[in-house]
Amino acid sequence: MNYTLYIGNKNYSTWSMRPWVVMRYFDIPFNEKLVKFDSFNDDSLFKKTMFSVSKYGTVPILIDEDLVISDSLAICEYLAEKHCDLALWPSDPQERAIARSLVAKMHSGFQAIRTYLPMNIEAEFPQIGQIILRDHLEVKKEIIFLDDLLSSLLTSKQSNCDYLFGDFSIADGFYAPLCLRLKNYHIATSPILNNYIDTICNTKGIKDWINDALQEKSFVAMDEPYRLHR
Amino acid sequence: MNYTLYIGNKNYSTWSMRPWVVMRYFDIPFNEKLVKFDSFNDDSLFKKTMFSVSKYGTVPILIDEDLVISDSLAICEYLAEKHCDLALWPSDPQERAIARSLVAKMHSGFQAIRTYLPMNIEAEFPQIGQIILRDHLEVKKEIIFLDDLLSSLLTSKQSNCDYLFGDFSIADGFYAPLCLRLKNYHIATSPILNNYIDTICNTKGIKDWINDALQEKSFVAMDEPYRLHR
Ligand SMILES: N[C@@H](CCC(=O)N[C@@H](CS)C(=O)NCC(=O)O)C(=O)O
Ligand SMILES: N[C@@H](CCC(=O)N[C@@H](CS)C(=O)NCC(=O)O)C(=O)O
Repeated sequence: MNYTLYIGNKNYSTWSMRPWVVMRYFDIPFNEKLVKFDSFNDDSLFKKTMFSVSKYGTVPILIDEDLVISDSLAICEYLAEKHCDLALWPSDPQERAIARSLVAKMHSGFQAIRTYLPMNIEAEFPQIGQIILRDHLEVKKEIIFLDDLLSSLLTSKQSNCDYLFGDFSIADGFYAPLCLRLKNYHIATSPILNNYIDTICNTKGIKDWINDALQEKSFVAMDEPYRLHR
Repeated sequence: MNYTLYIGNKNYSTWSMRPWVVMRYFDIPFNEKLVKFDSFNDDSLFKKTMFSVSKYGTVPILIDEDLVISDSLAICEYLAEKHCDLALWPSDPQERAIARSLVAKMHSGFQAIRTYLPMNIEAEFPQIGQIILRDHLEVKKEIIFLDDLLSSLLTSKQSNCDYLFGDFSIADGFYAPLCLRLKNYHIATSPILNNYIDTICNTKGIKDWINDALQEKSFVAMDEPYRLHR
């Protein structure tokens, strides 16, 4: 096994974060290649670099010998198959189906949150959070839906579980960036979800990603709708 | 096995189409429940019905006894696991990873095509297609990317294959709605892709979906940016 994972800036790149924290959590070793965002124009250094790696021109990309896998979800599915002893997905088929629904929802939905509350790990935006909630009903609706969805999963477990499906799984990796958005924009959520956000921030792998993000020194204008500098 | 698949209008619902054509192609029997679109407002009949089925309030939904699976991709993954003899995904692990990249791209990308060229099976919009290409550079970029991506897969096979990964798979089911968009808006594509679009339109399951769509009599205003009536 000799994996290489291409990622973007840890402070901003939610898609990169997902497979990275999953691999770290499950102790799957890999080489990290961080390609800094300059812009997403075709002539940017980022795009040129990523187009030399894959047709998709995006991060994350996983390389396993001569196989080049684009997309955070496809990467996680590949790893789940290859390391089937590790239970990257819940091992019960029904739970696994529910987990995949949740992850696919993250992949295709929550457009308003993704647009108006971009991840920015090292920043705090309490006022912006309030303004966005005031001005964009769609964001509010998505947060209510999300809180209900996650809370009902977190309370449905027989035992007191920390993660969405008992043990940490790909589903938690996919919702980790969303937790950081809620935290950094100081969005009020239910006690159950608050608690889950705390757990996520203190989870092996996720903690490392956050620490790395805090140490980055880049300011990327296209990812900063709410600041002019750090 | 006693599956029920909730879907929306066949003329418009691209997400519903995916698992439906996959199940039909592979002869997986199911009961169809078609819930007609009126609007997606919370008080619409469609939303009330779908919220009574699942928290997500969307179609497609697959019911397997007391399991309720939301999302076209999660549904297909569930079926692929449950009917592992049928090869819903390519059976080679590397091909499967590439197929999942492609499907995940469909799930999270092609935003411009999805916005400006909504599926409308029974309509033909040659002029609109040209205007959209003229006015929305993003659509053009996505079509060039798509054509390159699919053509290179279709020509990379040793033998002369009809489908993206040799035999029909979930990947073809996911790209079928896109083929119909290209066709109905008369978007020019490469000969290889033209050929693939023809194959898709004549594929078992997909042909049935198209025929059913042509027989629907509904006109749903929210899905008709380019017509006032039929
Ligand atoms: N669905 C893809 C999305 C990947 C993606 O869009 N990544 C962003 C960075 S977070 C990117 O590379 N964008 C470049 C571009 O859009 O040109 C995944 O899950 O990997
Ligand atoms: N990613 C989901 C998307 C499902 C979806 O958005 N379906 C549309 C109909 S094609 C829907 O039910 N929309 C209702 C709404 O947005 O409220 C899937 O693959 O199933």
